[in-house]
Amino acid sequence: MDKKERLVVIGGVAAGMSAASSFKRLKPDEEAIVLEKGDFISYGACSLPYFISDEIKDFHDLISLTPEIATEERGIKVLLRHEAVRIDTEKRIVHVRNTIEDKELSIPYDKLVLATGAQPIKPPLPGIELYGIFTLRTVNDGINIKNTIDKGVPQNRPMNAVIVGGGYIGMEMCESLRKRGLNVTVIEKTDRVLGTMDLSITGIVEEKIIGEGVRLLKGTSVEGFKGRDGHVTEVVTDKGGVEADIVLLVIGARPNVNIAKEAGITLGAGGAIMVDEYMRTSIEDIYAAGDCAEALHLVTGKKVYIPLGTTANKQGRVAGENAAGMHTRFDGIVGTAVTKIFDLEVARTGLSPVEAEREGLSFFVSTIKGRSRSSACPKGKPITVTYIVEKDTGRLLGAQMAGEEGVAHRIDTLAACLYGKMTVHDVARLDLGYAPPFATVWDPILIGANVALKRLKGA
Amino acid sequence: MDKKERLVVIGGVAAGMSAASSFKRLKPDEEAIVLEKGDFISYGACSLPYFISDEIKDFHDLISLTPEIATEERGIKVLLRHEAVRIDTEKRIVHVRNTIEDKELSIPYDKLVLATGAQPIKPPLPGIELYGIFTLRTVNDGINIKNTIDKGVPQNRPMNAVIVGGGYIGMEMCESLRKRGLNVTVIEKTDRVLGTMDLSITGIVEEKIIGEGVRLLKGTSVEGFKGRDGHVTEVVTDKGGVEADIVLLVIGARPNVNIAKEAGITLGAGGAIMVDEYMRTSIEDIYAAGDCAEALHLVTGKKVYIPLGTTANKQGRVAGENAAGMHTRFDGIVGTAVTKIFDLEVARTGLSPVEAEREGLSFFVSTIKGRSRSSACPKGKPITVTYIVEKDTGRLLGAQMAGEEGVAHRIDTLAACLYGKMTVHDVARLDLGYAPPFATVWDPILIGANVALKRLKGA
Repeated sequence: MDKKERLVVIGGVAAGMSAASSFKRLKPDEEAIVLEKGDFISYGACSLPYFISDEIKDFHDLISLTPEIATEERGIKVLLRHEAVRIDTEKRIVHVRNTIEDKELSIPYDKLVLATGAQPIKPPLPGIELYGIFTLRTVNDGINIKNTIDKGVPQNRPMNAVIVGGGYIGMEMCESLRKRGLNVTVIEKTDRVLGTMDLSITGIVEEKIIGEGVRLLKGTSVEGFKGRDGHVTEVVTDKGGVEADIVLLVIGARPNVNIAKEAGITLGAGGAIMVDEYMRTSIEDIYAAGDCAEALHLVTGKKVYIPLGTTANKQGRVAGENAAGMHTRFDGIVGTAVTKIFDLEVARTGLSPVEAEREGLSFFVSTIKGRSRSSACPKGKPITVTYIVEKDTGRLLGAQMAGEEGVAHRIDTLAACLYGKMTVHDVARLDLGYAPPFATVWDPILIGANVALKRLKGA
Repeated sequence: MDKKERLVVIGGVAAGMSAASSFKRLKPDEEAIVLEKGDFISYGACSLPYFISDEIKDFHDLISLTPEIATEERGIKVLLRHEAVRIDTEKRIVHVRNTIEDKELSIPYDKLVLATGAQPIKPPLPGIELYGIFTLRTVNDGINIKNTIDKGVPQNRPMNAVIVGGGYIGMEMCESLRKRGLNVTVIEKTDRVLGTMDLSITGIVEEKIIGEGVRLLKGTSVEGFKGRDGHVTEVVTDKGGVEADIVLLVIGARPNVNIAKEAGITLGAGGAIMVDEYMRTSIEDIYAAGDCAEALHLVTGKKVYIPLGTTANKQGRVAGENAAGMHTRFDGIVGTAVTKIFDLEVARTGLSPVEAEREGLSFFVSTIKGRSRSSACPKGKPITVTYIVEKDTGRLLGAQMAGEEGVAHRIDTLAACLYGKMTVHDVARLDLGYAPPFATVWDPILIGANVALKRLKGA
């Protein structure tokens, strides 16, 4: 009998499980082993804010696949609490620590997929070790935060939550924590929330969270934490102290690349693992996918590090298919992201003005206000649409939107336009669906393009 | 002083008013005259079902522009109840009948835009002249239907409405008339509602309307009408009589082209006025736009007649700009349409299987069922996605969707894909926004493309 071919996957969340699943789908008779250092595989980290807000009651609902079902239905062997510690690329062996029984083992591979994910940034500030300071990435993080809120809010005593970082997760957590009845303060180092997004959009978001009772401290740097009995009580900033019973550190993530780096695998954009369009690393038969890997940005043609769950799934699938002998491409991303902040939908795709400037592009920014539906439909809501447009060519470089309705899916249309390298002339001519309950005759997408087009022509 | 240049526009609804407005925007010192044979300009015919259902109370809310405001704010002269009867293309004169004072006048033009719209089809069946049989196209139609319902439903007596034709308007009117408490029967000649749409979608629609208490008679032909005291009481079909107090004839529309034809202007697809991408007709300085004009279908590269409000607005704008001396293109359409049928959103873009077959294309149809949001968000709804895909090339030819949530805007993403001539491989790799309240990690758009891709590869 022939020896089976073996795929080893390091990391069992989105990219890792996608890789193992697509490999086994194509090669059901070969072997796929997933090494996961944590307690869970295949969970939806993006749903954690809804678990903490208690809209999702049970953490099991965050998990789309258990090791048992992965084995039974997909033939994947999953080893939980198995941390890969070293890769011998010559002998094609992964050295693994089984942290349940605290022992080492060596697992040979024919193909290897690195899906080691990312690590939330936790700067070495004074007091960072105090209890009550959390990052938010894993199911365990979610459980710990929820438990702390559940036991930390005695009758009628409000609890003070401080969110450090005004990015997507920080904004989503505003809603979660307000829903749990907490006082919420957001501390953001820069002049706006949501990172590099345009002020036409971030202004709407800031107004929304402030209107929902969130205290927003912009241009404020965290310098450390104070506590009592080992528990955090205060966030120390350059502008004074902020009372805190619970702190969420959501200031970004770094790719987990130590094991790759030590194995001599080349790193790329943002310090993530360099990959080509087939998700191949610099070493043969080793692939990388998900939050540990870079991706090609289709607007700039340059590699970037933008870790997102949906990209992880796609990259994982492509890595698994290619490990199984296919020749599938992952073309790249256009930087699409969407989030819900209270009843506000906020979305972006492509380059922000700040990013376009960084690229040295010659562009202008054009903002319009439209409505989600026909004015004859009284429940329609305002939508703000901002386009980033290349001067001279009129090429759409990016789009951003905010509104209480009809934003989340409209951005996808513009993502498809970016994929197709369309100009604002093309966008202005799109044949979009119209019916009064869903859109205006001139959809906000078209109005935005027409206004940008007029500006382009110098009218 | 120089003589002013004069644009004359025949027809004052979507295309006509768009043409006059864009002309005046570019040439504020020149003259624009709009001739409208009816009582209203610039109304939203697509909103009529919501007026009849009484969600829109006042018919004035259907009208986005009055003649007074058109004159005051845009400098457009509007002549209501002025019907153009003949065009002298040699002398550049439009002969007009003023039906208010019943007199003739002659209006010279430098540029002419034909925006004569379409006429609902009203076949010469026995009894067609009975009161209570309506078509639905103009504000007056809406007012007449609503008045008839208002006075025709005394306490506790249900009224029987029959909708002849199972197209978009017929389906939308099911909801309107059920909301008004009427018994509703739909008579459809073919084997399905919604014309050429795929059975995977029309089946869902039929289930929905039947579930809402609508009686659906398919494969049934109307042969005439019976009445009492001049009022309709029965629709006669090839399968027997159907009781009716009110009948809506919504079996399609024909372009109003008599005046163009008599002037020697060439007709094209579907008997509509032939136009090029600049909306020019076969005669110099005469343009056509909207429901009286054909359009290029960007999927087939052939001219088609698909009259829709959103196309009318775009074509009108382009005609007006070019009449003002610009050189703007209207590239064409991809056949996008969306409708709401009770709480069901139904949408299409591109070619239906029937249309692809007519074109002699080699294709397959692939249907999947996805969900509108993450399974962790309990309010998510099923979405059915059907793709029509060219064999060999994998090019997306069309897409259709139905579901109670998240359909209307998802179709626009696929419309952009069709505009960009993308393959299902491209669609499968789109960087769409993901957040649990709005989508699944693999959006139904992506799942559909992946399944089609697998089929394409013969896997």
